[in-house]
Amino acid sequence: MLNYTRIMRDKSFLMIPGPTPVPESVLVELARHPVGHRSKEFSDIFMSCIESLKWLGKTKNSDAFIYTASGTGAMEAAISNVLSPGDKVLSLVTGVFGKRFGQIAQAFGATVEMITADPGKVIDLKILEQKLSLDKNKEIKVVTITHSETSTGAASDLEKVAKAVRSHGALLLADAVTSLGCMNIEIDNWGLDVVISGSQKGFMIPPGLSFIYVSPKAWEYYKKSKCPKFYWDFGKHKKSLDEETTPFTPNVSFVYALKKSFEMMQKEGFENIIKRHDRLKTRLRAGLKELGLKLLCEDKDASAAITAIYPPDGILVSDIRSAYKKDWDITVANGQDILKDKIFRIGHLGFVSDRDIEMTLAVTKKIFEKLT
Amino acid sequence: MLNYTRIMRDKSFLMIPGPTPVPESVLVELARHPVGHRSKEFSDIFMSCIESLKWLGKTKNSDAFIYTASGTGAMEAAISNVLSPGDKVLSLVTGVFGKRFGQIAQAFGATVEMITADPGKVIDLKILEQKLSLDKNKEIKVVTITHSETSTGAASDLEKVAKAVRSHGALLLADAVTSLGCMNIEIDNWGLDVVISGSQKGFMIPPGLSFIYVSPKAWEYYKKSKCPKFYWDFGKHKKSLDEETTPFTPNVSFVYALKKSFEMMQKEGFENIIKRHDRLKTRLRAGLKELGLKLLCEDKDASAAITAIYPPDGILVSDIRSAYKKDWDITVANGQDILKDKIFRIGHLGFVSDRDIEMTLAVTKKIFEKLT
Repeated sequence: MLNYTRIMRDKSFLMIPGPTPVPESVLVELARHPVGHRSKEFSDIFMSCIESLKWLGKTKNSDAFIYTASGTGAMEAAISNVLSPGDKVLSLVTGVFGKRFGQIAQAFGATVEMITADPGKVIDLKILEQKLSLDKNKEIKVVTITHSETSTGAASDLEKVAKAVRSHGALLLADAVTSLGCMNIEIDNWGLDVVISGSQKGFMIPPGLSFIYVSPKAWEYYKKSKCPKFYWDFGKHKKSLDEETTPFTPNVSFVYALKKSFEMMQKEGFENIIKRHDRLKTRLRAGLKELGLKLLCEDKDASAAITAIYPPDGILVSDIRSAYKKDWDITVANGQDILKDKIFRIGHLGFVSDRDIEMTLAVTKKIFEKLT
Repeated sequence: MLNYTRIMRDKSFLMIPGPTPVPESVLVELARHPVGHRSKEFSDIFMSCIESLKWLGKTKNSDAFIYTASGTGAMEAAISNVLSPGDKVLSLVTGVFGKRFGQIAQAFGATVEMITADPGKVIDLKILEQKLSLDKNKEIKVVTITHSETSTGAASDLEKVAKAVRSHGALLLADAVTSLGCMNIEIDNWGLDVVISGSQKGFMIPPGLSFIYVSPKAWEYYKKSKCPKFYWDFGKHKKSLDEETTPFTPNVSFVYALKKSFEMMQKEGFENIIKRHDRLKTRLRAGLKELGLKLLCEDKDASAAITAIYPPDGILVSDIRSAYKKDWDITVANGQDILKDKIFRIGHLGFVSDRDIEMTLAVTKKIFEKLT
């Protein structure tokens, strides 16, 4: 059997939901010698990234901050900056990351109620609306939602969820880790209060940075929040941002990489990025179905970033992943938690083109011809 | 006037206490395409870095973890994993970073007493011993110390501080951000409980990772700690480490860079690294004094990582820094907080050689010939 990992170095290809492929121009930025983070040169690059973040999230009203941390750090930031111990939180759980959002709130002393969708499904909007309408005393302070659930590939209708939460009055914290930069998000128009994301996803750079948006309403919650925080403290980041800097030493190299990545994204154009991800998803799903494979999510719930696939009867997920890796030097992801070994996942977010999808389908065809 | 920043690109030279110069071999690692963080390949690299961290900190008894965060994140981790609200903390403050350690403890609800040294000085060991001996009821749960205070260049005698704290029974949290990899630290022999450091210092890679060591005694405190935590949670990191992985997506690229940096450090040898930093410090201080410059710290308190210098009478720190930058394309640091514009600081940690120190002295001579 051919073994590409042995015979050709540097040919590995990631089709997982992060880390994602990184453009050469971005990699080259990472190899640049870091500049001092208190220099004018760095401030200019940094502030340009902040502006680009606002462009990507379609917001003029929210502040945007960059953390040197992975996505979970930004989730903790979202929680610890707006909550106080004892606050009631409603967590909409569509998988591992939705659950994690609730668990972080629990760790910070909140009383968390989780509504959990079946694997691959999203929360029924009617159930959410009913839940919120029953909360006459407005005890629910915060609702957490995962826009694109990385563990299943199910995408919630964030606009409609936000509308329901807004009419109740609670604060909405949205995990957009695998959706921002892949799917349309309109922070101001939809009324999203806190939105988080991570660098190794639609942003096309390696893992190492995370991002957070803070709306004026979220700032009101911040003022009342009694959860302890320091590294994540919105106030410290805001004060520094007003001075065009960061409160703590940032990952200078990654900020340069991010700047380059944003240049590429802006050249492609917002609408084109969204259209591309939608096209890749649609083509991949159609192609996989043509191969006779069963997908975890229905078309209407499908994330533009990742697709989860059931193994055909009698074939192990481990054998499928091994075939991708050993024969073709492609990494695809296993399921997580209760879906471990039950599904495999193909990421198609960030620096991914139509060509990559055709290649993936061609290879997938070969793999299942051999395995079945 | 010559302006090197305008005429030659890529010639910038950092003589600040982080980011520090980064070796070419490490930069090249950063430009590699990231691998999946749940792969065997990554696990091997990651575990090798964990072993190297133990080598650098001379410990077999402590666990070592890697956070995707800057140094302040690791400080917050140290605090939030061992304290409970209301616990009494004694913070030994020799500058900005010593104060920050105490402030983080305050943010997490501790009752913090700070003993503050004069700028450039360290805490008198007798004062510490007296303070601890007066605490008959053992109310002080934790003592925080900054080994090498980045804001002043003053280095405390960590071994003796640890001895005093150990005989009292409190837990010692040591900030070794600008000392680990520059100065000798013996975690096991000296009885250090929690030690933190950061990547952009003695580790010779850019900012983006921080490190933490956790002793068996610190684990006892962890079990009783009631401060909220999730991203920093020792338990989550330990559980993942036992499975040779990380609880959250790590900065894969930086872990590869760290592996390369450790290879270089191990080739140089621990004793040689310590001797080099000591030699660079000694030569720089002697050379600066020969030029008639007054140093902030006395020789006995001088950190091997950074030297703080008073401007000669009548010369502004801003003019000095500007001359380094504009005429010679060297970045030196300003003072911080109360020392801002009162001193300038030259970093000499990490990827710095004797040649760099001779160059710095030659340039400094030129600068003051022109400015005075």
